[in-house]
Order: sequence, then C-alpha cells, then structure tokens
Amino acid sequence: MPKVDLAATPHVSRTGYPPPHDAAVAGRLNRRFAAEAGLSLLGANHVILQPGAWSSQRHWHRLADELVIMLAGEAVLVEDSGETLMRAGDIAAFPHGVENGHHLQNRSKAECVFVAISAGDEGDSGGYPDIDLLFGPAGFTRRDGTPFA
Amino acid sequence: MPKVDLAATPHVSRTGYPPPHDAAVAGRLNRRFAAEAGLSLLGANHVILQPGAWSSQRHWHRLADELVIMLAGEAVLVEDSGETLMRAGDIAAFPHGVENGHHLQNRSKAECVFVAISAGDEGDSGGYPDIDLLFGPAGFTRRDGTPFA
Repeated sequence: MPKVDLAATPHVSRTGYPPPHDAAVAGRLNRRFAAEAGLSLLGANHVILQPGAWSSQRHWHRLADELVIMLAGEAVLVEDSGETLMRAGDIAAFPHGVENGHHLQNRSKAECVFVAISAGDEGDSGGYPDIDLLFGPAGFTRRDGTPFA
Repeated sequence: MPKVDLAATPHVSRTGYPPPHDAAVAGRLNRRFAAEAGLSLLGANHVILQPGAWSSQRHWHRLADELVIMLAGEAVLVEDSGETLMRAGDIAAFPHGVENGHHLQNRSKAECVFVAISAGDEGDSGGYPDIDLLFGPAGFTRRDGTPFA
C-alpha cells in the first residue's frame, strides 16, 4: 500500500554518536521508514522530539541534500546564521556541500514531530561545527581522523 | 536561510498535460521550491489542491522515487488497489519502477495542502493507466508514441 504504515516501523531512540555526544539526542524517537516503504533513492525519517531533545548534533552533509518538514509542535532550527522557529507546515532545506551546520532543538514543553528526507546519502560525509566529530562512510572519527576508543 | 521562504516561489497552476487531460488539475496550485532552496538532488513541490482538483493524472514513475506528505486538509489517494483517505501527517511512498498509478483527489469542500518530494527524476519516464498518455524526457506522447498535435 502506498500509504505508509508508520506503526509498522518501530520508534528507535538509539544513536551512533559516541559519548558524550549521544546525550542530546536521547529524547529523539526515530522511524526510518524509507526501506519499509520500498524507497531506495530517498532516505526518510519520521521523528518525534521529546521536550529538550535535539534532532542531531549540529551537522552538514557533503553529498546528501536534506529536507525537513514540520508536522506538529515547535522546534528551533539552529544554523550558522542564527535561530528560526519552525512550526507545523514549515520546511527547511539543506543543500549538499554547504558547510552550514544545522539541527532542531525542541525547547518547548510538548513533543514535536517532523519528517526528514534525503537523497545522495551513499558515501556521504560531513562535519559537526560545535564538537570534535566527523562522519563518513566508515563511521565517526575525531577531527584529526582518530577513532573513538 | 535554510527555512524555505515559500512566498518566494509563486504558486503556478499551469500544467504540461495536453487537453483534455489538463482540466482535472486546473485547481492545483504548485510551488516548485527545490531549486530556489538550493537543492539539486531532491525535487520538491508544495501543492494546494482546491476543492475538486487532482494532484495529477494517475501516474507512475520508472526512475524516480516519490513521497507525499499531507500538511492540511484531506485528499483521497487513488491507486490500483483502491482508495485511501489522507489527512494531515499522513505519508505515502511510491517506489520507482512500480507500475501502480497514483494520484490525490480533493473531494472535500476545503483546500488541502501537501508536499511532494522526489529523487531520480533525471531521464524519468512513466505512464498513466487511465488515459492514452505516456511521459518521458522528451515530453508527452500517446501510447503509440505519436505526439499530441
């Protein structure tokens, strides 16, 4: 069925971020539904942020375009040029190769819900302007290329 | 700015469909915002359907994955296996190469709003199960390959 059965993809709160960078996303519940829906060219995540949670560490992508569509609640989009309140119906776009770190913070007292969609993820890499972390096809490293022990 | 300024991309109601296939989408107002937002790997349309309007003729894509995210109002998703009511927060996914024609019909008395996102559009082609029409990189033809006069 083309209508996505979100309930078929469980919410997952795990992250690959090495400590201490994982703490900020502990309240992020993520449904990675593209594969379940049969999509292979699009990445798609249905995300609930509990109050206080971040969508990710502030990051940018070298190869992948990214789109965020707010469905419910409020979040603050943080990027290099400042902060922007995002509400249901608002959309944010992050072109690949633009080194403008971005993420969403739920500073409200209620859950917020958004969908994050991407294309070009294969072999993607990028960075995190606020912390000593890089990502790439082989996983996470520090900025000097050393792995996390 | 990563937050998409939808007002910067005017609504357009035009379609490339040859008559009489254009009539059903006359009440479709489309903002094709990906290029304005700097995206090149994702196609993105913010669409308002007036009461009675269709999102498109019922179609499928040979090369492009497609995702539809309902933002407001109601529409009926029509595809080979039947009809499904879509409301704000609902998502539908259309994997490339699956010949399951689909579209949205606004049968309600109020506008509805959705976002349609795609990847893999370059060189895309496909068909329309209900009418004598094909699309491809060179435009529209009848099923026998002849152009519309």
